[in-house]
Amino acid sequence: MTGGQRKRVVIIGGGFAGIYTAMALDRLLKDSDHVEIILINRENYFVFQPMLPDVILGSISIMHTVTPIRRLCPRATLYTREAQTIDLDEKVIVTSPGVRPKPSMIHYDYLVLAPGTTTDFSGSPGFQEHAFPFKNLGDAVALRNHLLYTLEEANIEEDQALRRQLLTYVIIGGGFSGVEVAAAMNDFLRQAARNYKQIMPKEIRTILINRGTRILPEMSEGLASYAHTLLQRKGMEIRLKTATEGATAEALYLSDGSKLPTRTLVSTVPAGVHPLMMALPVAKDKRGRVIVNEYLEVLGQPGVWALGDCAFIRNRINGEDCPPTAQFAVREAEYAAKNIYLTIRGNGNKMAPFAFPGFGKLSSLGHYSAVAEVMGIKFSGILAWLVWRTVYLMKLPGIDRKLRVGLDWLLDILIPPDIVQLKILPPQSFASERFEAGDTIIQQGDIGDRMYIITEGEVEVSKKDSAERQTVLATLGPGEYFGEMALLSKQPRSATVRGRTKGTLVGVKRADFAALLAYFPDLYERFQNLAEQRLNTIKHKNVP
Amino acid sequence: MTGGQRKRVVIIGGGFAGIYTAMALDRLLKDSDHVEIILINRENYFVFQPMLPDVILGSISIMHTVTPIRRLCPRATLYTREAQTIDLDEKVIVTSPGVRPKPSMIHYDYLVLAPGTTTDFSGSPGFQEHAFPFKNLGDAVALRNHLLYTLEEANIEEDQALRRQLLTYVIIGGGFSGVEVAAAMNDFLRQAARNYKQIMPKEIRTILINRGTRILPEMSEGLASYAHTLLQRKGMEIRLKTATEGATAEALYLSDGSKLPTRTLVSTVPAGVHPLMMALPVAKDKRGRVIVNEYLEVLGQPGVWALGDCAFIRNRINGEDCPPTAQFAVREAEYAAKNIYLTIRGNGNKMAPFAFPGFGKLSSLGHYSAVAEVMGIKFSGILAWLVWRTVYLMKLPGIDRKLRVGLDWLLDILIPPDIVQLKILPPQSFASERFEAGDTIIQQGDIGDRMYIITEGEVEVSKKDSAERQTVLATLGPGEYFGEMALLSKQPRSATVRGRTKGTLVGVKRADFAALLAYFPDLYERFQNLAEQRLNTIKHKNVP
Repeated sequence: MTGGQRKRVVIIGGGFAGIYTAMALDRLLKDSDHVEIILINRENYFVFQPMLPDVILGSISIMHTVTPIRRLCPRATLYTREAQTIDLDEKVIVTSPGVRPKPSMIHYDYLVLAPGTTTDFSGSPGFQEHAFPFKNLGDAVALRNHLLYTLEEANIEEDQALRRQLLTYVIIGGGFSGVEVAAAMNDFLRQAARNYKQIMPKEIRTILINRGTRILPEMSEGLASYAHTLLQRKGMEIRLKTATEGATAEALYLSDGSKLPTRTLVSTVPAGVHPLMMALPVAKDKRGRVIVNEYLEVLGQPGVWALGDCAFIRNRINGEDCPPTAQFAVREAEYAAKNIYLTIRGNGNKMAPFAFPGFGKLSSLGHYSAVAEVMGIKFSGILAWLVWRTVYLMKLPGIDRKLRVGLDWLLDILIPPDIVQLKILPPQSFASERFEAGDTIIQQGDIGDRMYIITEGEVEVSKKDSAERQTVLATLGPGEYFGEMALLSKQPRSATVRGRTKGTLVGVKRADFAALLAYFPDLYERFQNLAEQRLNTIKHKNVP
Repeated sequence: MTGGQRKRVVIIGGGFAGIYTAMALDRLLKDSDHVEIILINRENYFVFQPMLPDVILGSISIMHTVTPIRRLCPRATLYTREAQTIDLDEKVIVTSPGVRPKPSMIHYDYLVLAPGTTTDFSGSPGFQEHAFPFKNLGDAVALRNHLLYTLEEANIEEDQALRRQLLTYVIIGGGFSGVEVAAAMNDFLRQAARNYKQIMPKEIRTILINRGTRILPEMSEGLASYAHTLLQRKGMEIRLKTATEGATAEALYLSDGSKLPTRTLVSTVPAGVHPLMMALPVAKDKRGRVIVNEYLEVLGQPGVWALGDCAFIRNRINGEDCPPTAQFAVREAEYAAKNIYLTIRGNGNKMAPFAFPGFGKLSSLGHYSAVAEVMGIKFSGILAWLVWRTVYLMKLPGIDRKLRVGLDWLLDILIPPDIVQLKILPPQSFASERFEAGDTIIQQGDIGDRMYIITEGEVEVSKKDSAERQTVLATLGPGEYFGEMALLSKQPRSATVRGRTKGTLVGVKRADFAALLAYFPDLYERFQNLAEQRLNTIKHKNVP
């Protein structure tokens, strides 16, 4: 160990696995260890996922299920970016760009992989387009707004078939998350409907579709059957042994050929491999999970750890692989942090192999009901519900969040749930921008994130050669395009574009531009010709 | 009065004026009056605007500044739509479409116009593109997220010029709303910055730009000068007698030719005429406000009332025109409701002319400070702040909201503000949709809201003639377009399109399609040719 040398631990992912690793390292490391922690996560907050169904139910304020990461891990430096590529040989991570279209390169000495999984709709045609996922805060907010939208519309709709479609809600997946979100939706809709004069609560149909022979396969049969009966009593339809075929904007199609008209389809299955992990050249199991040794280190990659839902981890207690749950992720994080700490201090030989018996299993079933198996004891009903709330309130990180959620739950008992449909206008597809003479619009060498159409004024295109000489290539005016070259070639910006006068532009983002070329062959041709012309100009002007 | 005849009052607008009119009518009318109230508002909630700066500050949860309209006016039927046209002769309002692209036509017997104003950036080039407005809940959420974004980026940015730009915040307008939002931003940024290790609070610059010689022209000079000094002490720069020239993504340009590099520009001025009012053929003042008589009835339009910010109302007390404030809107609503009630009951001759002395003036200045003039008494500092909170808590409609906001304010004193940057992914510009054989994609006679590109499968285009005979016009397959005719001609859908097989489509919305044609002349030509061909086909097939 060389005391003066600063080491860097980079953690990818801000879910339970990533955050609890950062928090544990924060506790273990002293300033004298000279270790820097960097956490890369798209959001600046940690989502306490077990409480997301409460957002639907309205019993917790949207913002209280999430905690700012900076508060949880004050020692870590947070990059609110997406990790895009990992170079295991060079030990470098490239992230998505920020304000300016330049990627960040982050070097690491130790790497923790905890990006989780994505929802993979590829096996179900139409799900990508028409099903709501339910994984993060944005999903919960979008789904809740959509439920309110269907009530608003059904309330003033006179077409009876459309009303029925609007008031039919289908949830696919009878595991923990499917059951929890279905229960929350069912309770919320029936309670909210009281505010809509033209909607009778009995008009609301919530349908849970499950491929297996019973719901909650993670729990014992007795509790699952209790949950089944309770949900039915609350008005939910449960269809077992039912597979789905596909979906459109107006219906879910089942494998038996029947069709379920609905405008609301929620799918909690299945989990797919995170794109970052897909590209990583390491050993994986057949479900695409990264294989680790008993210390949670990636096979053949010393200094690289993987945990949480992205990893295949053998539990020493029973020889089974660990389930993708919060409690396992948290325990894995503690082991990973401890083992990283020992490695950094040169005590790698003292690492502890992962072993965890599990605390128990909990599933909420809407207002005042839940099922629980804790240390071998089974509960159900209001007692399980109280256990559920107590356990999760204790687990929620941060005293301020505990206080806020505690108060929310108290108010929830006194006050009916909210029916505010939060509308935030989406940004426009074709956003216009204004520039002044001399402003740099595109910088040579940057990433090409969009192309531009000039609507007013003029710009000057110039290029710097290897001897740092700037050559003017062209002046462009209204109706002309620029910036498309980097999008077509996937190379960095080949030239700099500055305002010659003041003016306005319309920017078209990379993905939108790709869609335009794919859907409108005329444009594809036009831009191919333009690219050829421009390459000729560059050659002609002798710019390398 | 004929007891059995049901009359309908339609209110356009869900701000203070519209909501309080509906609430007052709700109280006055009995079931035996046989009057139906319809309220048209884009959102299903009422925004308590004086509390929006508290959303920035983080002292109130986002959702607690808004109240579901159905809770406030249970008797009214709410249309969460936009009123698009008003026909005063036929007494019919056409609203924007809902789930299906069909407009709603709403007939009225009595009409209340209270749509408010819009923010009009037309005089300031670049403001439309680059300035944040601050009028509704969506604006407050978007601005708060942006502030957190600038902190996140500045914290990891190494380019010093870009850091300074990110940490410079400019607010334009020194009236009530400009000062309130500037004070909230200044307090929030300085407090939140403590969570960002690389940002020193003194690096943050908040600049208030005011055209006039002093801020808060609505208040007495002494209080304005107190507010000025206090805001400066809190670290804000205030520039008086400063006019703006325009803005780009990276700077605000001032009339003196200087340039203020910034990534955050908030503009609270000026108010523009609501588009609905612009098209209305009634008497207006030179600022475009609808002129009403002393009973708030629109001149020459018996049965039509106008109030709130859209109306020009003379105050009988002092002969001045009423200011665009919440307290005046609420009082106007009470008069309007009373006068409508009297008219409906045939007692129009007992209507009361509008007269209101005003209660006072209040402006919050961030944490623990405010200025107030109530019934001739002037306050400032923490006392004014307590008055501000008490008055607005009392005025906030609904006991549950009072309780929630009261608790928020209590917690706010104990707990530091949140720094969660809420990310909700915007919907894609080119959304794909899936269809099954037989599904109706476009219905003849509907409004044309988008055009489609077939990416997979086939569709059948058919047309019904006046004798209800359905003629098949064409079968289209992958790469072909449909639905563009109604967008080009602005007529209803001229044909029906159904799935012939199953398949997928990409939809392009009307506004995006218009932008495509405007920016890409190749596409314009292609679609003009296509339209001609298709018109010929229709002629050829002898479909009228």
